[in-house]
Amino acid sequence: MKLTILFGGASFEHEISIVSAITLKEKLTTFDLNFVFCDGDHQFYLIDPAKMKATTFSKGEHKKQPLLTLTNGAFSQKSMFGSKEYADVVLNLIHGGDGEDGTIAALLDFYSIKYIGPRKEACTFSYDKRFTKYLCEAINVKSVKYEVFYKNEQKNLDLEFPVIVKPATLGSSIGVSIVKEESEFDYALDTAFEYDSVVLVEPFIEGVKEYNLAGFSADNKINFSIVEEPQKEEFLDFEKKYMDFSRSESVSKAEIEEELINKLKTNFEKVYRGLFEGALIRCDFFVVNGEVLLNEINPIPGSMANYLFEDFEASLLLLVNALPHKKRAKISYDYIHSISQAKGK
Amino acid sequence: MKLTILFGGASFEHEISIVSAITLKEKLTTFDLNFVFCDGDHQFYLIDPAKMKATTFSKGEHKKQPLLTLTNGAFSQKSMFGSKEYADVVLNLIHGGDGEDGTIAALLDFYSIKYIGPRKEACTFSYDKRFTKYLCEAINVKSVKYEVFYKNEQKNLDLEFPVIVKPATLGSSIGVSIVKEESEFDYALDTAFEYDSVVLVEPFIEGVKEYNLAGFSADNKINFSIVEEPQKEEFLDFEKKYMDFSRSESVSKAEIEEELINKLKTNFEKVYRGLFEGALIRCDFFVVNGEVLLNEINPIPGSMANYLFEDFEASLLLLVNALPHKKRAKISYDYIHSISQAKGK
Repeated sequence: MKLTILFGGASFEHEISIVSAITLKEKLTTFDLNFVFCDGDHQFYLIDPAKMKATTFSKGEHKKQPLLTLTNGAFSQKSMFGSKEYADVVLNLIHGGDGEDGTIAALLDFYSIKYIGPRKEACTFSYDKRFTKYLCEAINVKSVKYEVFYKNEQKNLDLEFPVIVKPATLGSSIGVSIVKEESEFDYALDTAFEYDSVVLVEPFIEGVKEYNLAGFSADNKINFSIVEEPQKEEFLDFEKKYMDFSRSESVSKAEIEEELINKLKTNFEKVYRGLFEGALIRCDFFVVNGEVLLNEINPIPGSMANYLFEDFEASLLLLVNALPHKKRAKISYDYIHSISQAKGK
Repeated sequence: MKLTILFGGASFEHEISIVSAITLKEKLTTFDLNFVFCDGDHQFYLIDPAKMKATTFSKGEHKKQPLLTLTNGAFSQKSMFGSKEYADVVLNLIHGGDGEDGTIAALLDFYSIKYIGPRKEACTFSYDKRFTKYLCEAINVKSVKYEVFYKNEQKNLDLEFPVIVKPATLGSSIGVSIVKEESEFDYALDTAFEYDSVVLVEPFIEGVKEYNLAGFSADNKINFSIVEEPQKEEFLDFEKKYMDFSRSESVSKAEIEEELINKLKTNFEKVYRGLFEGALIRCDFFVVNGEVLLNEINPIPGSMANYLFEDFEASLLLLVNALPHKKRAKISYDYIHSISQAKGK
């Protein structure tokens, strides 16, 4: 199976995407892989698999690799002798901005390239935590209560401390603070506003149980991963999260009852159906007093959450064969023709 | 003021976009305009203003015009002698698919081209009527109640007849039916499913009052158009809507009380703030028993709803100077550097 791994991106998670791609190279041994790197200037490069090391990118050596451009149906490499097309299915592995905000999805759709990854509408609801809340309310999935703060807006906080303050649109804990008392709140808000003009504040629930569940739709049903109980930390800092993205060893299942597993699956399915088709996503849930709350949707989880699937390569094959196909609308000039005829032109 | 009008697109409203562009050419006499046409194959052409006639496109004569490609910061015209860049602000005038679904917004953002038009997140909420409902619920704006039908799903209708059946994502009344009794319902549903796998059903309210209000944000406030009471029809068919998109004569204000105007403005502002910045949008409202309901958001109204603004050219200038600027995230290799150093590489 041929597959093009698209990674990098002008994103705060640029490095993390590189680590993810290197991890998948090790994991997808039965696939025939191409690697396309998007640099911070939005140039695409075809990377020789032998050069898939972190230092290739940090030292700028990728610039010696062939440049690619987007053309109808493919990434295209132009040379003196014509052009070579890379038209395989793309795995969008750009975490954070560009990849998870819908930009890459729109680009690939516009150029009619098939891809694994969230469509742009799905990205709107997963990338911006404010819109994840809108989605939860609409589809009747519970989540932690919240308040929205807009930059330059004068507003008091109604929630009680401790709270967690998050920029609406960044992942990997960037700009996130836990605030234990009022005196620290303004500073936390300013920190978050450095990254986004919209900030979410939620109650910080100590000792909350967390469970992660990944899955994707194929053959008209959701194929679920095992449920994982992630390691407990107040929240993962950037460095720990970074290590997390290079995971490839499978984890052990969370020791929870079938009833809770089913609740998690029901909530996952409500989020996924009619919105995330084409993507393998990971939903991170909180469980508070037996109640399941959606914390976050990761539409492109680190190294595709490979460690949560018993047979990751087989899962990916299933997904490749179930990708949605965006039909390009057929245009017509019927109306203009009929007007022109009526005018005798 | 230089401005590039981007029109066409692979959309059922392709012809309508051409009409819109021709109308704006007549209306924006003090602007220095370029015209970029996106054809049904997603190729871009630079159109000579003298060729801005409907038949240029219906006869395929645009293919003799220079091809453009998207490059960083501009549409670029390559020739034997190098390349010429068109780096002016773009007015996204592609109605329907491509333009209003967020694709063009994502493309222009990716290539760092400034533009008038809805950003991709805003498009998610205006293009898909299902998500407009999600938005209304979240921001506390009333709208007509609804039921969602998914293709291949067995489900009964709870609403009473008459109802209006609409594909979730198309404008211009395509695939829309008014259903007066149950026997016609399945056929209407099938018709709508030809255009979209998600269909919305709403009660059809006879004799409802309709009001349109356009506006945009600049200088930290919303600049409103006059309120229009559109001509009464059960609903506009494609041909009538088409004529509507070529309007350039100003209309007279709806004769309604200040209190209702203020209600409409308040609802408009709730929809717009924090989501539609950069766009001139038109909100179409219903008024039922004195209650204002949002019917539809037009994020790229036909010929930019020029006829609703007293001084349209001045309005557009205000908006051009208030466009949001998407900063490209700065990438770093700090983490890879620190790991490499620790390893002594």
